[in-house]
Amino acid sequence: MAATGLAAMARPAFAQGDLLPSWNDGPTKRAILDFIARTTQAGGRDWVPVPERIACFDNDGTLWTEQPVYFQIAFAFDRVKALAPRHPEWRTQEPFRSILADDRATLATLGEKGFLEVMAATHTGLTTEAFGKAVLDWLATARHPRFNRPYTDLVYQPMLELLALLRAHQFKTYIVSGGGIEFMRPWTERVYGIPPEQVVGSSGVTRYELRPDGTPVLVKDPKVMFIDDGPGKAVGINQFIGRRPVFAFGNSDGDQQMLEWTAAGSGARFMGLVHHTDGVREYAYDRPSLVGQLDKAWNEALRRGWTIVDMKNDWKVIYPFELK
Amino acid sequence: MAATGLAAMARPAFAQGDLLPSWNDGPTKRAILDFIARTTQAGGRDWVPVPERIACFDNDGTLWTEQPVYFQIAFAFDRVKALAPRHPEWRTQEPFRSILADDRATLATLGEKGFLEVMAATHTGLTTEAFGKAVLDWLATARHPRFNRPYTDLVYQPMLELLALLRAHQFKTYIVSGGGIEFMRPWTERVYGIPPEQVVGSSGVTRYELRPDGTPVLVKDPKVMFIDDGPGKAVGINQFIGRRPVFAFGNSDGDQQMLEWTAAGSGARFMGLVHHTDGVREYAYDRPSLVGQLDKAWNEALRRGWTIVDMKNDWKVIYPFELK
Repeated sequence: MAATGLAAMARPAFAQGDLLPSWNDGPTKRAILDFIARTTQAGGRDWVPVPERIACFDNDGTLWTEQPVYFQIAFAFDRVKALAPRHPEWRTQEPFRSILADDRATLATLGEKGFLEVMAATHTGLTTEAFGKAVLDWLATARHPRFNRPYTDLVYQPMLELLALLRAHQFKTYIVSGGGIEFMRPWTERVYGIPPEQVVGSSGVTRYELRPDGTPVLVKDPKVMFIDDGPGKAVGINQFIGRRPVFAFGNSDGDQQMLEWTAAGSGARFMGLVHHTDGVREYAYDRPSLVGQLDKAWNEALRRGWTIVDMKNDWKVIYPFELK
Repeated sequence: MAATGLAAMARPAFAQGDLLPSWNDGPTKRAILDFIARTTQAGGRDWVPVPERIACFDNDGTLWTEQPVYFQIAFAFDRVKALAPRHPEWRTQEPFRSILADDRATLATLGEKGFLEVMAATHTGLTTEAFGKAVLDWLATARHPRFNRPYTDLVYQPMLELLALLRAHQFKTYIVSGGGIEFMRPWTERVYGIPPEQVVGSSGVTRYELRPDGTPVLVKDPKVMFIDDGPGKAVGINQFIGRRPVFAFGNSDGDQQMLEWTAAGSGARFMGLVHHTDGVREYAYDRPSLVGQLDKAWNEALRRGWTIVDMKNDWKVIYPFELK
């Protein structure tokens, strides 16, 4: 590949120091630096105009940890417990009984119907404002079961560096996640530097309502509006951004179509997958995993030469707190 | 009001010339300049942090003309004519027969069902890319029936100046329109300086599909995804932007809830309505109009002291071509 040559040419732009200090030197880091250098070098063959510099990142498993369960599920379960005093019927009614009793064996069998019941009970029937507050309150007190830290501590330091590096080169960084848009927006600006208007995600229907005093509110209804996962990620990118990204990063089969959609544009493209290979510092999982399965997208990445991050070998540190 | 005093204080910021040259001096222009000065003056009581500087504009009747019919309807009708050779059955089948025969009397009676049939026939069954090209091809050749000019010539010069002035003060300018998101995005950046990712609008469902050669496309299906009008504008702002605007401009009852939603935030707010009062240079219409009815929103604006633009008296010129 000519990539090495181009990266060498572009190196002066990065001369002031290591801009991805948490990434080990090697082909993955070189591929990223090379892409940024090539696409932002004025007059270069691969130059991308600033308005077209759209970079999309999956969230769960790509920007932060998604084990042992998606953090939004942990939020939903904790919220069932918090709301339980107002719902005495939940003590006997599934799936709530199992959640309250921490009965994981039964929970594992609840399927989509049970999941949707939990989401409706914990994510709807309140205003968008009250929901945002519930998310922030939860993040302030909840702790990850393994690391005993706030969930927002479990973001990947190497990805924070990559987000900042892209923005320093005038890329607009977006989240494109299967997670709930209202679950992410209250904190993504603080944690990732990604403002609410650059967060694309799944969402429910909201309803405009005037309170008796004339104050308008948006009430979250128990009806799905849009699922931003799999093919839905390409749909969501088109719906919310209206431009095809030139850079996309995911970690699971749910990101395959986002990467395909990115790859299908003309000119320079970057498609990346995080492969969770570090069972000591984080988690190791891929093809048979229930959470964040990486199987078909991995095959396609191998076949098409997309960049695959080997967490164990490519990342010097996983979490920001390791630096302290 | 203290507004005048604050505007006087802030005047040095605008000292280098008239930044809204197509607006006549008077209370409307003063209210706009005063708001921008107050909210962007560092240390001022009404200062708005840059990330919160979200300004939302309706499109039809606010940024460009919407008479004698919404321009997207003109596009749809022209597209029926362009597609007619492939649909011989349309010669006898309503509503297509009436469109092909320019039978306005019958067309006026078709109602929502007929409208949706036309939209399905002209806006779906093709890829997003092919649709965007159809829009641009149409804009390049179609002419407005009264002004005999491309439809994109019929944007309001005073609003172009306002958009530019807001952006110069680090406001992010958005379109929030009942019109189709895919109809607007191909040209809003060139015409208004508003990039696709800052266009919120109505949309249909799109479907991700792999072509036989492996190329992914998004196909527009004949199913409504979201109507960005009336209460839907507050919903759309929350869905796409995820922040409450501090500045909003509309012209009809379909903008009422966008303005209410904007007004309900804390701190300095600007709510504006364009009142179409100039039947000579543009069109004069309000309460009883079928297109762009301004009735309930007008009452609310009067009651709450929102800014109302009197086109005839507040605007020196309507269209950019008048300046040439």
